[in-house]
Amino acid sequence: MITVQFAAKAERFDEYRAPLIQAFEKAGLDVDLATDHDPACVDYIVYAPNSDLQDFTPYRRCKAVLNLWAGVETVVGNATLNIPLCRMVDRGLTDGMIEWVTGHVLRHHLGMDRHIINPDHIWDPTPAPLAKDRPVTILGLGALGLACAQMLTQLGFPVTGWSRSAKTVAGITTLHGDGGLTAALGTADIVVLLLPDTPATHHLIDANRIAGCKPDVIFINPGRGPLIDDEALLAALDQGKVGHATLDVFDVEPLPRTHRYWDHPKVTVTPHIASATRADTASEVIAENIKRGETGQSFLNVVDRDLGY
Amino acid sequence: MITVQFAAKAERFDEYRAPLIQAFEKAGLDVDLATDHDPACVDYIVYAPNSDLQDFTPYRRCKAVLNLWAGVETVVGNATLNIPLCRMVDRGLTDGMIEWVTGHVLRHHLGMDRHIINPDHIWDPTPAPLAKDRPVTILGLGALGLACAQMLTQLGFPVTGWSRSAKTVAGITTLHGDGGLTAALGTADIVVLLLPDTPATHHLIDANRIAGCKPDVIFINPGRGPLIDDEALLAALDQGKVGHATLDVFDVEPLPRTHRYWDHPKVTVTPHIASATRADTASEVIAENIKRGETGQSFLNVVDRDLGY
Repeated sequence: MITVQFAAKAERFDEYRAPLIQAFEKAGLDVDLATDHDPACVDYIVYAPNSDLQDFTPYRRCKAVLNLWAGVETVVGNATLNIPLCRMVDRGLTDGMIEWVTGHVLRHHLGMDRHIINPDHIWDPTPAPLAKDRPVTILGLGALGLACAQMLTQLGFPVTGWSRSAKTVAGITTLHGDGGLTAALGTADIVVLLLPDTPATHHLIDANRIAGCKPDVIFINPGRGPLIDDEALLAALDQGKVGHATLDVFDVEPLPRTHRYWDHPKVTVTPHIASATRADTASEVIAENIKRGETGQSFLNVVDRDLGY
Repeated sequence: MITVQFAAKAERFDEYRAPLIQAFEKAGLDVDLATDHDPACVDYIVYAPNSDLQDFTPYRRCKAVLNLWAGVETVVGNATLNIPLCRMVDRGLTDGMIEWVTGHVLRHHLGMDRHIINPDHIWDPTPAPLAKDRPVTILGLGALGLACAQMLTQLGFPVTGWSRSAKTVAGITTLHGDGGLTAALGTADIVVLLLPDTPATHHLIDANRIAGCKPDVIFINPGRGPLIDDEALLAALDQGKVGHATLDVFDVEPLPRTHRYWDHPKVTVTPHIASATRADTASEVIAENIKRGETGQSFLNVVDRDLGY
């Protein structure tokens, strides 16, 4: 019997209990899943960073913390956590992100908004350029950035991907480091932010970086709120330097009702829906990692504490 | 020397002259291209159906009429036209259609409009289902329908394609005929119309067919205006039976400024931009067909007068 503690908001247990039990059974694991195990007996913790559980000290025999979220920035620095921490890399989450990013890139590429909101009944049959003439840059080539880059490439967009360290990916232009970032931003009509939130990426998009972008550049941020210096972005939108920003993530969520982003005509707010972990596919990822732990294999998607993701 | 008459609106010649000359040179064709040749000397006509040229009788030695448009409904019945008529099948046109259709399918799938227009600052973080749980039906499996079906399949949508006669396409469910149409419409969350305008497709989407659709079905029409019975669609929208209609083509274009579609909250009008023939790629298609004519090969994309496309 494997003892698994579920540590997240109560409503999450309602959502995950049945899919997890099903995934454990499918993986041949004999699991006792609950939210109130004696910490000393727990083998694995299924975890959401907004859980009440913040002190891992009593979980003395626990082998791994299995995060339900892709983002780990609010748990990675927890000094009481000294066992492997695994990020969620869920196919459902990746698929959802591909759909949201592709949809909003196409929305801006096609200039849909001027048809969705057209009170003056303007009939202007000027077609958009083809995707092949619309360069897109994706900042971040992790699982999500890479998957989005590949779908956009299939649609014909010339995609540049930027990452901290050098990577080579078939079909896209890859750049890295500080110099690479300047080129990646300077050539794009549309910039998609899919970087983790780390000290190195905090306010990566600031006044200086925006100044190096093309006129009317579009920013799409389904990554993390702190990647963008909000004041710098608002100033650039007001000055007509940035064409539009579609933002799914924010420093504070829900975005406060009085935040300037809400009513800005060049900003679209989406409520952190670009990608959600799906209970069914996420449960299979959790079960796979527990099986690996029980059979002595290395865990999947272990967080590097130094890099922060 | 091959004599080619350009017969379209004057502004089209400004657009096409240079790309056509370049394409003829590239194909090794010695062409005299003009808008005012003696009809008796013309070998080929590059043609737009809204051209002043409607009587083909004087073009006695002409070998083919090469249409600049994908649609041929206003020329196919011309009794003076007794030589091969070729539709435009342009890669640029296909790519543009893929982009427009994929973009609007994703827009409706993701429910983008409630974020683009959100004056009450509603933060509702309920994600859309995944594409795999969003069945899409495409009516018409010609070059355009097929290309869109394939891209939507890559995004994970379960795609059903319907065509007049039976077809088999890898990766999608294919249906045909009257019975097939009932099933194709009855299972779809989103219906994309990519049929030609023929007597058999006139008002294909009428009150009866709409009644057989799922509640809140979405119609996307980048095909031809007469495919839809406008009054039936408006009634169904008003009754809450149809969720939304995004329409790019209309019986009369530009859509009259007083048409009910313009201000209907559940209708998005786009100004016949889903796909435009691109001068550069279209010119290459024209050159290819002239080369075929000159070397005794069969023309590409010859219209079947009986089928009407």
